[in-house]
Amino acid sequence: MALKTRFTELVGIEHPIVQGGMQWVGRAELVAAVANAGGLGFITALTQPTPDKLREEIARCRTLTDKPFGVNLTILPAINPPPYAEYRQAIIDSGVKIVETAGNKPQEHVDEFKKHGIIVVHKCTSVRHGLSAERMGVDAISIHGFECAGHPGEDDVPGLILIPVAADKIKIPMIASGGFGDARGLVAALALGAEGINMGTRFMATKESPIHQAIKEQIVANDERSTDLIFRTMHNTSRVARNAVSQQVVALEKQGAKFEDVRELVAGSRGRNVYEVGDNDAGIWSAGQIQGLIHDIPSCEELISRIVAEAEALITGRLAGFVTKKQMARA
Amino acid sequence: MALKTRFTELVGIEHPIVQGGMQWVGRAELVAAVANAGGLGFITALTQPTPDKLREEIARCRTLTDKPFGVNLTILPAINPPPYAEYRQAIIDSGVKIVETAGNKPQEHVDEFKKHGIIVVHKCTSVRHGLSAERMGVDAISIHGFECAGHPGEDDVPGLILIPVAADKIKIPMIASGGFGDARGLVAALALGAEGINMGTRFMATKESPIHQAIKEQIVANDERSTDLIFRTMHNTSRVARNAVSQQVVALEKQGAKFEDVRELVAGSRGRNVYEVGDNDAGIWSAGQIQGLIHDIPSCEELISRIVAEAEALITGRLAGFVTKKQMARA
Repeated sequence: MALKTRFTELVGIEHPIVQGGMQWVGRAELVAAVANAGGLGFITALTQPTPDKLREEIARCRTLTDKPFGVNLTILPAINPPPYAEYRQAIIDSGVKIVETAGNKPQEHVDEFKKHGIIVVHKCTSVRHGLSAERMGVDAISIHGFECAGHPGEDDVPGLILIPVAADKIKIPMIASGGFGDARGLVAALALGAEGINMGTRFMATKESPIHQAIKEQIVANDERSTDLIFRTMHNTSRVARNAVSQQVVALEKQGAKFEDVRELVAGSRGRNVYEVGDNDAGIWSAGQIQGLIHDIPSCEELISRIVAEAEALITGRLAGFVTKKQMARA
Repeated sequence: MALKTRFTELVGIEHPIVQGGMQWVGRAELVAAVANAGGLGFITALTQPTPDKLREEIARCRTLTDKPFGVNLTILPAINPPPYAEYRQAIIDSGVKIVETAGNKPQEHVDEFKKHGIIVVHKCTSVRHGLSAERMGVDAISIHGFECAGHPGEDDVPGLILIPVAADKIKIPMIASGGFGDARGLVAALALGAEGINMGTRFMATKESPIHQAIKEQIVANDERSTDLIFRTMHNTSRVARNAVSQQVVALEKQGAKFEDVRELVAGSRGRNVYEVGDNDAGIWSAGQIQGLIHDIPSCEELISRIVAEAEALITGRLAGFVTKKQMARA
């Protein structure tokens, strides 16, 4: 079984399901498992401490799968930015054919990737940024709604609205991101005008996901209300799993705290620790509202096969059934 | 053409499209137009100044349609509450067969309506309130997502997540509300587990909607970002069209204003005025993010026919096409 769309054709995969860039999570084991299951996974470049380590990670992924996979390069403003051009060169030199870009002002990177014939999927949180990326020459858009883990932007427009508004204006293939985790979401995304879905939190809770088992179990235990929006007052909103640290940050922001005031709290806890330590409250970690629909920890193969099989059944069974009853009555 | 679901069967209508209760807007002309187009419209009880005026409005609606329609009764906490029991009696005495309830603690009203064989659809913004209403004995749930106009609750869970989470737990038929205005949204809602959609803002911008033409045109001009959440700091959030007054309220709330501080600003402008005066900035008025997908002012018949025809085409064309390509290749 398969669902064929403009996006699956563009990137040469079997199923319109993408595991997009996730800091700390997007490593070879997960990416290869997604690829072997017929989806598209992205290694997260900046999870690797140096461009050379990224080259090694890409090579390692190749030993685990012979199917297409990609690399994510996220460009965020920083006082001491990572050597983006060197990471980019590592991607190009490694012969990677698909790149996911995210963040601000990707033009320079898009130009370089396109010069080398690489397919670029740009992730953005608003229609105007999607249109701007389309003009820059990217091949596909990943449109990221309010439900998502990580950065939803500041417009607070959920997928139900964002996807069709974007589909009316953007000509290149578009995948929907934020709030997806099952067949119902995939079919909804396809109905709303997307050609596939990107899942983040859902892939965190898989057997091959390189995070601590206790955090996977926490995702299963959490419901759709178990997230917080932090850094909202700083106009750099991030959706994270609700825990002791996130609640502390939210409380400090309510009292008017600036980034400097919460930097230590967040920096001391963010990232690797919580994945390695496996303590929900050990630090900030990203998770989306889709937690409310995550009830198990399957392999990537089990997850993707289930979503595709159920999506086909939903389209040809439940949905077609609403229509045909009357038509049959008429015949 | 028709789309038959558990909800259309329950209430005896042709299409799974509902025009739910909207203060000032839910009057006989609009409700009858929706009914005549095969949908389900609700007269808003409290738009009428007295229970007797409500009796007259119901009678007037009967002169405009012989199809089923309903009445909305919204119960909100108030220092001087309207005479709810008298409005309820007016609904019962008038022989109305379908009621939409909304607001807190509807048990007493649900009991009375059910005693008289009336079908009750309860609107709520969270799964736990939906389950509670199901236990109270209502016949259907209208689940109201973050995208909506008016009261989204305080959980900020959009339809993409809220609808399937609710569908997994609620047994009675459920319609989806908030963020719906076209065929893509209807098919998405059906895929996510709902049996129909409720539209508010979309019906405001129809020929038969009893609001000022200039406000209808403003809805068409507005995009998906043209809303504000007011009363957020008071835990009584309301999504309204962004205008001079809403921006002033938001700014005052940021400075720590309490309800008393903005009461005059809001009370002096809310409601009738903006509908009768037709000045966007004359006062607060409710509108949802679906504004970004509203581009015309059709009749209710044109709107509902278009949505149903396009929804059928979407199910049997675009969606089925994704599936069958591979199956055909196999045969």
